[in-house]
Parts: sequence; C-alpha cells; structure tokens
Amino acid sequence: MAIIYLDNAASTWPKPPGVKEKMAEVIEDFAANPGRGGHALAMKASKTVFRTRVQLSRLFGIQNPNNLFFYLNATQALNQAIKGFLKEGDHVISSSVEHNSVRRPLEYMSKTKQVEVTYVEPRGDQLFHREDFVQAIRPNTRLVAISHASNLTGVILPVAELGEMAKQHGITFLVDASQTAGVLPIHVEEMKIDMLAFPGHKGLYGPQGTGGLYVHGDIDLEPLIHGGTGSQSEAIEQPTTRPDRYESGTVNTVGLAGLLEGVSYVMEKGVEDIGQHEWELVKKTIVGLGKVAGVTVYGPGSETKRVGVVSFNIQGVDASEVSFILDQQYGIATRAGYHCTPLGHQTAGTEQTGAVRASYGIFNTEKDVEILIEAVSEIAAAFR
Amino acid sequence: MAIIYLDNAASTWPKPPGVKEKMAEVIEDFAANPGRGGHALAMKASKTVFRTRVQLSRLFGIQNPNNLFFYLNATQALNQAIKGFLKEGDHVISSSVEHNSVRRPLEYMSKTKQVEVTYVEPRGDQLFHREDFVQAIRPNTRLVAISHASNLTGVILPVAELGEMAKQHGITFLVDASQTAGVLPIHVEEMKIDMLAFPGHKGLYGPQGTGGLYVHGDIDLEPLIHGGTGSQSEAIEQPTTRPDRYESGTVNTVGLAGLLEGVSYVMEKGVEDIGQHEWELVKKTIVGLGKVAGVTVYGPGSETKRVGVVSFNIQGVDASEVSFILDQQYGIATRAGYHCTPLGHQTAGTEQTGAVRASYGIFNTEKDVEILIEAVSEIAAAFR
Repeated sequence: MAIIYLDNAASTWPKPPGVKEKMAEVIEDFAANPGRGGHALAMKASKTVFRTRVQLSRLFGIQNPNNLFFYLNATQALNQAIKGFLKEGDHVISSSVEHNSVRRPLEYMSKTKQVEVTYVEPRGDQLFHREDFVQAIRPNTRLVAISHASNLTGVILPVAELGEMAKQHGITFLVDASQTAGVLPIHVEEMKIDMLAFPGHKGLYGPQGTGGLYVHGDIDLEPLIHGGTGSQSEAIEQPTTRPDRYESGTVNTVGLAGLLEGVSYVMEKGVEDIGQHEWELVKKTIVGLGKVAGVTVYGPGSETKRVGVVSFNIQGVDASEVSFILDQQYGIATRAGYHCTPLGHQTAGTEQTGAVRASYGIFNTEKDVEILIEAVSEIAAAFR
Repeated sequence: MAIIYLDNAASTWPKPPGVKEKMAEVIEDFAANPGRGGHALAMKASKTVFRTRVQLSRLFGIQNPNNLFFYLNATQALNQAIKGFLKEGDHVISSSVEHNSVRRPLEYMSKTKQVEVTYVEPRGDQLFHREDFVQAIRPNTRLVAISHASNLTGVILPVAELGEMAKQHGITFLVDASQTAGVLPIHVEEMKIDMLAFPGHKGLYGPQGTGGLYVHGDIDLEPLIHGGTGSQSEAIEQPTTRPDRYESGTVNTVGLAGLLEGVSYVMEKGVEDIGQHEWELVKKTIVGLGKVAGVTVYGPGSETKRVGVVSFNIQGVDASEVSFILDQQYGIATRAGYHCTPLGHQTAGTEQTGAVRASYGIFNTEKDVEILIEAVSEIAAAFR
C-alpha cells in the first residue's frame, strides 16, 4: 500500500531530490569540523555551513548572514530568543494559538522571572486583529512573540501589521515561522521582524536536526548555551562575535548541507507558488470534509486563506482512533492528539477531544485529498 | 594528494561503512517526526531513535535508556547538566584542563548565580591526583565536573577514583566524555558517574548534530529548553516523563540513525582495542617527534597512557603556520590554535603560542604517523 503522507506540519516528507545525495557526499568527503581548523576538509565544511547561512538570508531578506544562528530545531531557537531576551518584570504579548515551544518558555519565564504574558485571542471570525494587540500593550511590554500561523487550524496571523505596530511602540518582535517558512513569503526587514525562528525539516525541506534563529544586529541576547566557539577560544567569556556567540559547540554540518538543498529547491519552486498549491489542497479538503455528515472541521472556512493544515474530528469517534484507522486501513499518515498547543485547542474548542490533523507539502496532490475525503467518509459512515 | 586526516579530536573522519547508507535510507524511507504521530512512518522514526538510545545505554552501562537524552552536541548536553543542576551559592570542583564547554558554563554560573568553582591542577608529573580533589571539597560542594581526558594533551583523569570519592561525600559527579566515549571503557554504574555528556561525531563515529547526556534517575534537572514534547502536550508545564522532559522539539532522527551505525561499529571493534590502537599511534608520535630538534611535545611522556591526541610546537614557527604547511604541502590535516581550552594551555605552558594538535581515530595507521614525523622534521629543518 502506497503511503499518502499528510503529516507535513510535523516533518515534511519526502525530501526533494538532492537532499539525501548532498548529505551522503558531506559524510563521505568532508565531515570535518567547520571553523575548528584551517585544513582543507574543515574549510570545505565551514563553506557549506556559510552557504546555507547565505541562502537562508536571501530567502528571509536578512542583510547580514552572520545574524542567523543554527540550532537543533526551532524549539531551541525560540528558547534562545525568549530566555535570552526577557528580563525580570517584562511584559510579553503573545497569541492563543501558540505552540508549546513558545508557550512553555513564556510560562517558565513567568514562573521564574515574574514575566507577565498576555495571550491575545481571535475574534468571532476566528482571525487575529491588530487592534487587540494594540489594546494589550502596557508600559512594560518589551516583546511581541507570536506564531506566523497556527499548527492546529492553519490560521495566519497578521505579521506585517504586528511588526509595524511593534516598531511604532518600540517593542521587539519575535516570529515563530515553524508553519510558514518556505510556505508564506517572509522578509524580516519589510515585516519589521526583529527575531525569526524556523525549523529546517518542515517547509524548508531539510533534514531533522536543523533549525535557526535570526536576530537583528542591534539586539544582544544572553546566550543560552556557553561553550567552545572556535573563535577567541583563549577567552573565558563567550565571544561577542556573531554567529559564534550563539553557536557554541559543533554545528550539524551534514544536516545543514541537506538543508541548503531543501531551501534551494523551495526557492526554485517559489514560496508563493508552494503556498498557493497547499492552499488549493486545503480549500478542497475543507469543502470536501464539510460535506461529510458527522465531521467537524476547525478554523475559519474555505474563504479565509491559511497554511496547509486542516484539523477535524468525526463525531463519536476518538481522534486517535480515526488517525489509526486512516493509517492502518488506508495508508494515510495523519496526526491525532493535542499537537503541542493546549491554548490552540481551547481556541478551537477541542481541548477535550484533540483533533485529527492532515497537513500538506509540496508533493501532495489533489488525488491525495480525494482519497482522504473518501476514507473519512467511510469511517464516519461506519461509526454512524 | 591523499589526505591524512589527523583532526579526529574535532570530528572523526572517515565514518565507518553503514553510517552514510543508513542516513540516506532514513531520509529516503521515513524521515517523519518520531513520537509526534502514531502513523507507520513516525513509528519507524521513533523506533530508530529508541534503538540508538538502547545501544548507547549498553555501551555506557546505563540501566534505563530513558535516562539518556539527545542533543545537538556535547556542549548542549553539558550546558543542560551544569545549568540545570547548580543552584545559587553551590561550589563545584573541576579541573584545569577543561574545554570551554565546561569552563564557560561554570564561569557563567559563577557570574550570575554566585557559584564557586575550584579548578584542580595536575602535579609535576602532569597527572591529576585524587587527593587534590579531596582537598578541594567544601561544605557547599555539590558537583564534581570534569573531562575524562584533555583535548589538548590527551591526559586521562582518574574518573573511577573521583566517582568513588564523589559518592563517599554525597557529591554529584558529571563527566565530559568528549574525548573518551568510544575510546576508553565507560560504565556509569561502576564508575559512579551521575551525569555523562558525550558527542556523537567523535569517538562514536556518528555524524555531527548528535550528542547526548545521561542523567541518573534520582537527579532532577531544570530543563534548559522548554517546548513541545509530543507527550502531555495539553499541559502548560514541561512534562516530568523522561526522556521527554529534556528533549523538547524534534530530535535529529537521521543523525541518530547514523550514530547507531557508528556506535555499533565501535562496539563490534571493541572500545579497548580501539583505545589501544590509538595509544600505539600516540606513543610512536611522542617518541618520534621527541627526536626532532626544535620540537616540543606537550603532556606526559610515552610511558603514561593517554587518548589519541598529541600537541606540539616547532620552535620559532607559529603553530598555525605549521598546521598550514602540513595541510598545503603534505596533505596532513591537523589543527592549530587554542583548542577551546585556555586553562589547558596555561597548564601546558602554551597560553602564548597555542599548539599544533594531531589526533587519531580508528582508521589511522602507523604509516600516517611516520609521514607526520617526517613532515614535521622537514618543516623544523627548513626554519632552523
């Protein structure tokens, strides 16, 4: 049974041609330690990492590639941004659809550093409005930290508007692009994004073990990780040079080489076209599932653009049961559960049930959507 | 010109057969997100990560594989151990040969949490003695944090003795196995190691982007990274379940699959045999370089066993110049500089000059050593 993979919001699969080959080449030819030795192999490794930095900077409109730091995943990037930036007594404005990778660091800072957090909610139209964020501003608001899009409903937040607002009020702006990097256009200068966290293994089509954080040159974060940096290694203190200051220890050279291939593929295809493709699949899914008796689809309707994520439930059937049957009987890989976003579930009204999530990538087709809808119809009918 | 790779202390290369192939297989067949979905691909990914955990547990004598957590590198593991464990006013005993990945987190804790640190030095024989550590114990000593071996001179610290000592005094014992995992036998129970940090890309022959930390089940660390864990994702607080509590965000599935191959190769070859092989190469290097006029070799002589690292200088020639010539003229990859260990250089008396480091791996041969010695002789002669 061929697998229909609809779990791209967790990790995209398959990867584009070239990712696997490039990683194999790096392992085979020069898996030396970049920036930690001037010999030919280390230079090759170092260049590969730098090229990835440059390519991602092009994608995100980052002027200085050295303001982009590599991590294990977007979660580590977000922890560096949030914990490295916030100080005792600061106020943060966030949203009610945050993933635990934003929510839990904020709650930790709240518990240990008396940081105050306001989670702005969407209105009746299930969308977020600039004015509600403006309303939340206090004298001690130092950070707006939001997801670019919900990983549960795919709802897109008005990042450019919020960037403008943050700028006007002198507030630093952090965006979690976990569901949007490679799918929606992102330009840190135009959108006035001060810090941008992203995973390498989702919409950028690199391997797991890669993620990154852009930090504007004017912002000095306390490093989350201290250690060897290759540069100024005679100093006891962490160097101030970027990216070294925020990249202690050996980076994932082979993974970053794969990421370069993934990002290059995405840029060749065009972010807007990819986003449009996924949006077409989502629309078809919302409309199709909406016609199935007993199925509830979460989030706004098919007239509101979102990223490639559709969450739903079948009345009277446990979400994980649905996901299990889809996998076992139909070879359709979805994800059931809470998707690491308790607030998102409260917002969607699914905090008791969780939800089944289908999420799309570049390689999904309309045929995949049709097969999903038919399978869900059959399951719903069987349990009616 | 064939490359003679003598920079294995930074990253081993080449990797054993199977590492590259396994990584390619994972990318190709099931690069899904482990533990974040019950579908077949995610289960395969999850099993791969678990198998790596089990195999490493076998290698290190760890009873419960869930007490082993995966990170980007050993540096992140050490930061988790040190910052997650120490509290305001604690005293730590460390050594004077620590890498910056131990030293800098300790100094950070000293600056921000009034943690006190004693760096024990070697005696005239260049070796570390248990009694000097005992002398350093204070009423508020809560942690002994040491490298298993110096990355500059290869000197081995008496880990089993220090574990015994720490146990007797109720002090927690953290070992940085960056230069020893896969090269010297390590058994956390027998050696009374409470926390063990290790890289995946050095003596365990996995790819970069992998590393880990073992933490005894009785020790509760504050997580360094908060975020999505796949489990208990409906909770706002970090779960207490291991390994989830300490592994927020997506792990490096493809890298860990490669690491499993590397570790399995090491276990098949036998850690003791590998260590013996590297020691033979080191002895030959120390003796050979010792005969070259104008060359100083650091660390104890060839009668004292050490790991596969030899640092040296040629009188009157800058270390980086020597390393550059070795690379360009002889195709020998070494590393020059400070090797992220300022204290180690003070200890070795090379804080002004740095040093050239040659470091060996499984695949180096006696022939490699002969070529190195001849090359160094020629360079020394040329500059005399």
